[in-house]
Amino acid sequence: MSDKQKLEAKVFCVPMSSPGDVSQVAALFDRKAVDPAHVVAIMAQTEGDPYARGYATLAMEVLLSERLGLSRQEVFAKIPMMMIGGVGGIMSPHIYLFIKQPGGAPAQGKRLALGVASSRELKPEEYGTMVQVDLVAETVRQAMRDAGITHPSQVECVEVKCPAMTPARIADAEKRNQKVVNTNPAVASSLAKGACALGVAVATGEVERGKLKDGVINVEKSLYSSVASTSAGGEQVACRVLVIGNVEGAPGHLMASHGVMTDQLDAGGARKAFSQAGLELRDGMVAETDRKRIAGVLVNAGADYVTNVRGRRHVLHSDFLAPFSGIQAKAVAHAVVASIVGDTMFLASAGAEHQGPPGANLICVIAEAKT
Amino acid sequence: MSDKQKLEAKVFCVPMSSPGDVSQVAALFDRKAVDPAHVVAIMAQTEGDPYARGYATLAMEVLLSERLGLSRQEVFAKIPMMMIGGVGGIMSPHIYLFIKQPGGAPAQGKRLALGVASSRELKPEEYGTMVQVDLVAETVRQAMRDAGITHPSQVECVEVKCPAMTPARIADAEKRNQKVVNTNPAVASSLAKGACALGVAVATGEVERGKLKDGVINVEKSLYSSVASTSAGGEQVACRVLVIGNVEGAPGHLMASHGVMTDQLDAGGARKAFSQAGLELRDGMVAETDRKRIAGVLVNAGADYVTNVRGRRHVLHSDFLAPFSGIQAKAVAHAVVASIVGDTMFLASAGAEHQGPPGANLICVIAEAKT
Amino acid sequence: MSDKQKLEAKVFCVPMSSPGDVSQVAALFDRKAVDPAHVVAIMAQTEGDPYARGYATLAMEVLLSERLGLSRQEVFAKIPMMMIGGVGGIMSPHIYLFIKQPGGAPAQGKRLALGVASSRELKPEEYGTMVQVDLVAETVRQAMRDAGITHPSQVECVEVKCPAMTPARIADAEKRNQKVVNTNPAVASSLAKGACALGVAVATGEVERGKLKDGVINVEKSLYSSVASTSAGGEQVACRVLVIGNVEGAPGHLMASHGVMTDQLDAGGARKAFSQAGLELRDGMVAETDRKRIAGVLVNAGADYVTNVRGRRHVLHSDFLAPFSGIQAKAVAHAVVASIVGDTMFLASAGAEHQGPPGANLICVIAEAKT
Amino acid sequence: MSDKQKLEAKVFCVPMSSPGDVSQVAALFDRKAVDPAHVVAIMAQTEGDPYARGYATLAMEVLLSERLGLSRQEVFAKIPMMMIGGVGGIMSPHIYLFIKQPGGAPAQGKRLALGVASSRELKPEEYGTMVQVDLVAETVRQAMRDAGITHPSQVECVEVKCPAMTPARIADAEKRNQKVVNTNPAVASSLAKGACALGVAVATGEVERGKLKDGVINVEKSLYSSVASTSAGGEQVACRVLVIGNVEGAPGHLMASHGVMTDQLDAGGARKAFSQAGLELRDGMVAETDRKRIAGVLVNAGADYVTNVRGRRHVLHSDFLAPFSGIQAKAVAHAVVASIVGDTMFLASAGAEHQGPPGANLICVIAEAKT
Repeated sequence: MSDKQKLEAKVFCVPMSSPGDVSQVAALFDRKAVDPAHVVAIMAQTEGDPYARGYATLAMEVLLSERLGLSRQEVFAKIPMMMIGGVGGIMSPHIYLFIKQPGGAPAQGKRLALGVASSRELKPEEYGTMVQVDLVAETVRQAMRDAGITHPSQVECVEVKCPAMTPARIADAEKRNQKVVNTNPAVASSLAKGACALGVAVATGEVERGKLKDGVINVEKSLYSSVASTSAGGEQVACRVLVIGNVEGAPGHLMASHGVMTDQLDAGGARKAFSQAGLELRDGMVAETDRKRIAGVLVNAGADYVTNVRGRRHVLHSDFLAPFSGIQAKAVAHAVVASIVGDTMFLASAGAEHQGPPGANLICVIAEAKT
Repeated sequence: MSDKQKLEAKVFCVPMSSPGDVSQVAALFDRKAVDPAHVVAIMAQTEGDPYARGYATLAMEVLLSERLGLSRQEVFAKIPMMMIGGVGGIMSPHIYLFIKQPGGAPAQGKRLALGVASSRELKPEEYGTMVQVDLVAETVRQAMRDAGITHPSQVECVEVKCPAMTPARIADAEKRNQKVVNTNPAVASSLAKGACALGVAVATGEVERGKLKDGVINVEKSLYSSVASTSAGGEQVACRVLVIGNVEGAPGHLMASHGVMTDQLDAGGARKAFSQAGLELRDGMVAETDRKRIAGVLVNAGADYVTNVRGRRHVLHSDFLAPFSGIQAKAVAHAVVASIVGDTMFLASAGAEHQGPPGANLICVIAEAKT
Repeated sequence: MSDKQKLEAKVFCVPMSSPGDVSQVAALFDRKAVDPAHVVAIMAQTEGDPYARGYATLAMEVLLSERLGLSRQEVFAKIPMMMIGGVGGIMSPHIYLFIKQPGGAPAQGKRLALGVASSRELKPEEYGTMVQVDLVAETVRQAMRDAGITHPSQVECVEVKCPAMTPARIADAEKRNQKVVNTNPAVASSLAKGACALGVAVATGEVERGKLKDGVINVEKSLYSSVASTSAGGEQVACRVLVIGNVEGAPGHLMASHGVMTDQLDAGGARKAFSQAGLELRDGMVAETDRKRIAGVLVNAGADYVTNVRGRRHVLHSDFLAPFSGIQAKAVAHAVVASIVGDTMFLASAGAEHQGPPGANLICVIAEAKT
Repeated sequence: MSDKQKLEAKVFCVPMSSPGDVSQVAALFDRKAVDPAHVVAIMAQTEGDPYARGYATLAMEVLLSERLGLSRQEVFAKIPMMMIGGVGGIMSPHIYLFIKQPGGAPAQGKRLALGVASSRELKPEEYGTMVQVDLVAETVRQAMRDAGITHPSQVECVEVKCPAMTPARIADAEKRNQKVVNTNPAVASSLAKGACALGVAVATGEVERGKLKDGVINVEKSLYSSVASTSAGGEQVACRVLVIGNVEGAPGHLMASHGVMTDQLDAGGARKAFSQAGLELRDGMVAETDRKRIAGVLVNAGADYVTNVRGRRHVLHSDFLAPFSGIQAKAVAHAVVASIVGDTMFLASAGAEHQGPPGANLICVIAEAKT
C-alpha cells in the first residue's frame, strides 16, 4: 500500500458571508483544524451572479498563496477550485474544503477516499468532442488511482470542472482555421459539460466507449453517468477532476454514498442515499441524533431539462424568470433534500447533460461511518 | 337548517396554459361537470408578472359574463376572484373553482363547507388600519355564516383579497386631506394585508380584539392567525373573503384540514395536515393509492420574512434575485409539499404579515373524506 | 382614383396606465374623435412581460367587439393588432390607432397612406423558410395596393407581425411528419422574423428575389430592408402587415419619413428622418414649435445584434440582465431619439433580423405636413 | 505655492473585460505610462451585480499591493477606490485612474486639479445624520486644499463614497444601545448618501449650513449640490472624497467642466458642459476632430427619483424590472450623452439624493485644454 493511500480524507464545510469571504477558511487554518498544505480541492456555493465564482476563486487564491508561500498561479495549478455560482431559494452560501492528511490507522470497513487530477490543456476546438470525452475518462481514472480506488463500484461522485467556451476562444480557434463544435458559446459549453459527463461514464463503466461518437453528445439521452456532476468556467484551461468514493480499510471516519432522484419529487431516491450512508431516517427525515454525523451533501439538479414533472407543466423555460431556470431547479432540489436533512448549508448545482436520466437529480452524502 | 346549508361544496382544479387561458374552465361548463351559476369563488395561480393576475381576471370575467348573461361588472361583484400571481420552481399554473351546488344527502361526519362575503368599499385612508381589521373580522364572520359554520374551530382556511394601495389612491386621499397609513404603496399594501390577517384572527378568536391598535399591525409578530392567507390587488375596492371549513353533516364527499410548518424545512408540520385529512402517509409521502383523493392544497409561505432558516443565512433578501424573494419562498414551500403529495399542481402564495408565526408556512388540504 | 384611395389616413397615440387599460381609446370613441369602424390597425407598447401583449390584445378585442357589434374572433380577423411587449428606460406605454376615414379633399403634395393585409394561415413547417418570404412579399404588395401606393419608393415603413413558433406547433408539425426549421422555438421564431424582413425587402425591391434561398435567412446579413420592422407572436396564425407610406395628392394632413441610424449613437441618422418630415431642428433637437406636429415615431433597435458599439465592448449579451437585452437595446434607441423629440411616448421595438444593417436602428416619423 | 500644487493632474481610462480584469492598468504600469505611486484615486464601472464592486476592488488591491510593496490594507487606506457597480444599455466597463505626478510647467489658464481626503471612521448611528453632513463638509474642504483649490467656484465635481448600512452594523449599534437612522439598510444607506451630498453642498456654499437639520435629509429636495455624486459601499468605514476642479496656472493639459441636465431629455444641458470644456459641437455632437481631446466623462443620473419625464409616465418603479431602475436610469443618461460624445466608455452612476434637482442628471467633462 502506497503512502498516498494511507492519507486520511476529510471534508470541512464553512459559511461565507459574501462571495469574497474566506475568513472562515482562514479561521480553520488559524486554529490548526486544517493545514493549508493538506487541501486537495475546493468547492464553493457562491451567491451573486456568475462573476462571483471568479471573485471567490481570487479570494481563495490570495489566502492560499499567503499561507502556502506559493504564487497565485501555483495555487491555481495545484488545487482544483470548483466554484458553483448561483444560489436560489433558501440555499446557504458556503465553502467545502477537501482534505487529505497523513496519519490515521486503517479503519474496519469502507472509508472516504478522495482523488484529484487535471487533464492537459484543451484547445477550444476540442471542447464538446470525443477528444474531451477520452481526456476526461483518462483523467478520472488517474483521480481514481490518486484516491486509491481500484474498482468503479467504489466511486460515489465525480465532480468535473472544464473550460467554458468564450468568444475569445472561438476567435482563437478560427484564427488557426479550426472549427469549434458550436459558435454559440453557451451551446458549446453545454456540449463540453456533456462530454465531461460521458467521460466519467466511460471511466466508471456506466457507458461503453464503443457506443460513443461526436453525434451522440447531448443528443443520446439514454447514455449517462449517475455519479457525474460537471460544470464549465471561463477561468479553466484544463479539465479538473475530483473523485469521491470509498476504500475498504482506508484511514478516517467518513464514508460516502450516492443516490438518484428520478425526478424533483422523488424524495425516496434521496432518502436512500442517506440510509446507505448509515443515517437513520425517522418520519421521512434524518433522525435528529444523526444529523451531526453529516459532513457533506452534494446535489446535482436536472429539472431544467424537462418541460414537466409527472405530467404537470412547469414554466422554468418560459416564464420571465426563465433565464434563471438553473437557479430555480437547484432551489427546488435543495428544498426537497433540505427538508430531509434539516439543514440548508449544502451544495446544489444544476447540470443536465448526461448527468443522470433526463429530469433526474443526483445526490452524494458524506457522513461519519457508524462502525 | 336553511337552504344554504344544504348546498354541497366542491372544489375543481384545472390547468392553465397561459395567464389568459380559461379553456379548461369552459370545458368543465361545456361537459356539464360544473354549472357556472354554482361558482362562488375563483382562485388562480398565474405565471408571469403581476399583470398576469389582471389578465386572468379579465379572461374569467369575459367567460362568466358570456355563460351567466351578466355584465363583466356584475360578475366581478358576484364572484370573488383571488388570483395569486407569480410562479417559481416547478409550480404548475392552474385555476381553482369553488362550487356550491344544490342536492346531496347530509353526510355522516364532517364535510367541506365554503362561505364567501365582501366588505363595503374601503377608503384608501382606511387601508392598513384598525378600521380594516374590524371590517375584515365582520366580513369573515359573515362568510362563516354563509358556510353554515357556527364555531371558529370549524374554520380551516380563510382567503382574503383586499385592495392594494396605489399612487392614484394616495392622491385621492390627499385630495380629500386624508392621511394614508404610508405613502409608499408597497408598505401600505403590506399593512393592509396585515390588517386583513388580524381581522381573520379576531373573527376566529385566535387574537383578542382588545390587544389590537394601529401600532401593532405588522409590528407585533406574536399576534397571528394560523388559518389566514391574505393578498392585495389594485383591482379590488373591498375586501373579499373565502372561508374554507368543515360542518358536521353537510352534504358532499370532501373535507378540509389545516397545518402549520414552523419553518420551510418542517415537512412534519405539512404531513400532519395530510394525515388529519384522512390521507395515509408512507415513507413520508402520501400513499400512492390515496393521492387521487386530494381535491386541493393551498400553501402560504412566510420564508421571506426571516433572514435565516435554522441558523443558516439565506440570501432571499440580498441577492440579485431578491426582488423575487416572494416567488422563491413560494417555490421552496411548494417543493417541500410537492415531494409529500407527489404532484405539483396546487396553490402556493407568499404572505408573512400575521399569517402564522414569522418564517412559518400555512397549509390547507382538501380531500375526499374516507367515511 | 378608387374609393379606397380617397380615405384619409390618421394616427392617434394615447397613453395606457397598465397593459389592460384601453380607457383612452374608449374615450376617443366616446367623444367621436375616432369612429371604431375606421380603425385599420393597432399597435401598442405594453409594459410588463410578454404576456402583457395578450392582455392588451384581449382588452382591445373586448372593447372593439362591444363597439363594433362583432365577435372577438371577427375583430381579430379584421384588425391587425401588433402589440410590442417590453418597456425599458423611460419608455412610456401607449396605443397607436391607425385610422382610415372617408372625406377630405386631395392635398397638394405627398400625404400619409396606410395599407393593411393578411397572408393565408401558415403551417409551422413554413415558418422561417422561403415559403414565408414569398408569402410576406405578396402580402406586402397587397397592403401597398390597399394604401394606394404604386411604387416602392413611396413606402416609409412596413410593420409585420407573424406567428411565433411554439412547442405545440412543433409537435403539430412532427405529428404530420413535417420538419420545422429549428426545434428551438426561439431560434425558429427568429428565423420567421428574418423571413418576414426579407419578404418586405423583396416587395420593396431592396433585395433581389433571386439572391434568396433558405440558407441565407439570418445568415447573410448584407441583405436587409431599411423599412421593415417585424415581430412574432404566439397568438398569430398568419402574417399581418401594415404599410406606412406617402401618396401624392392623398387627402389629409400627415406625411411619413424614414431614416437609418447606422449604430446606437448615430443621432444624425435619426435627425435626418425628422428633417425629411418637414420638422425644423435647432441645436440637434426638434424645434419646440414643431413638436406638436409629430403624430407618431416608430423606432426599431438592432443593438442587441452586435457585441460592441464603435469598438467599445458592451455587455448586453453577457451580463446578468442579458435575458433582457432586447429591452435594453430599445431603451437606448428610445433615449437617443427622445432627446431629439423632447417626448418619451413613442414606439420602440427590437428586431435585428435583416431589419437594417447589423447594429443599426430604423426610424419612421409621421408628422403634420407643412404645406 | 506648495509642492503639492505643482503636481500635474492626469486621468486615464482603460477597458475591463470582466470585473476582475485589471490587466490594462498593469499594462499602463508596465509600459511606464503611469507610475503606480502617483495614483491618488480609482473609479471603475463594473458590469455584474453589486458584488462585482468588491471583486474589482480586491483585484486592484492585489495589483497595487504587488506594485507598491504595500499590504492590501495599506493600499485600501491610501487610495480611495470608488467602484460604481451595474452596467446597463450600451455602457462599456472601464477603470478611471486619477493621477498626480511631479513636474510640468505652470500652464497659462485653468488646469485640472485633483484632491483626495478621507474622514475619520463613522459609527453606524452617525450614518445619514448631521454628524455625517458635517464630517463630509470638512473632508471635502480638506480635499479642496489637497487640490490647491481656494474657492468653491473652482470645483467641478465631487465624488464621495461612504459606508453603506448593513445588518451587521445595525446589530453593532443596537448592542451599544445606539439608534441607527433607519433599520432598513437600504433606507439608511440612502440617507447616508443624502447626507454626503448635503455635506458637499455645504462645503461648496450651494446650501447654507443653517438650513440643515436631521429632518431635511432626503426630504427637502430643494436643497442640493450640482457637483456632488455620492454612493455607498459596505466595504467602506469612512467617507472617501475625490474633488475634481480647475486651478489657474496649475501644470498640465487638462481642464474640467460640469453641467446639469434638468431631466433625462435635456441634451442641451449636457452639451453646455462639453462646450464649456472647450470642445466644438457640430449638429448637436462633439465635432469628430475634438473627440480625442476628451479624457473623461462622469454622469450621475437621477431619473429614478421621479415618476414621469415631461408629463409622460414611465415604469422604472413599477415594472418587473423595477428592481433595476437605477441601472436603467444610468443606461438612459448614458445613451443620451454617448450620442453627443460618439463614445460609450465613460462613467454613469445613479444617485438622486440631493444630487441636483429631482430627476436631473449631473455631468462632468474632463478634456484637453485648447490653449
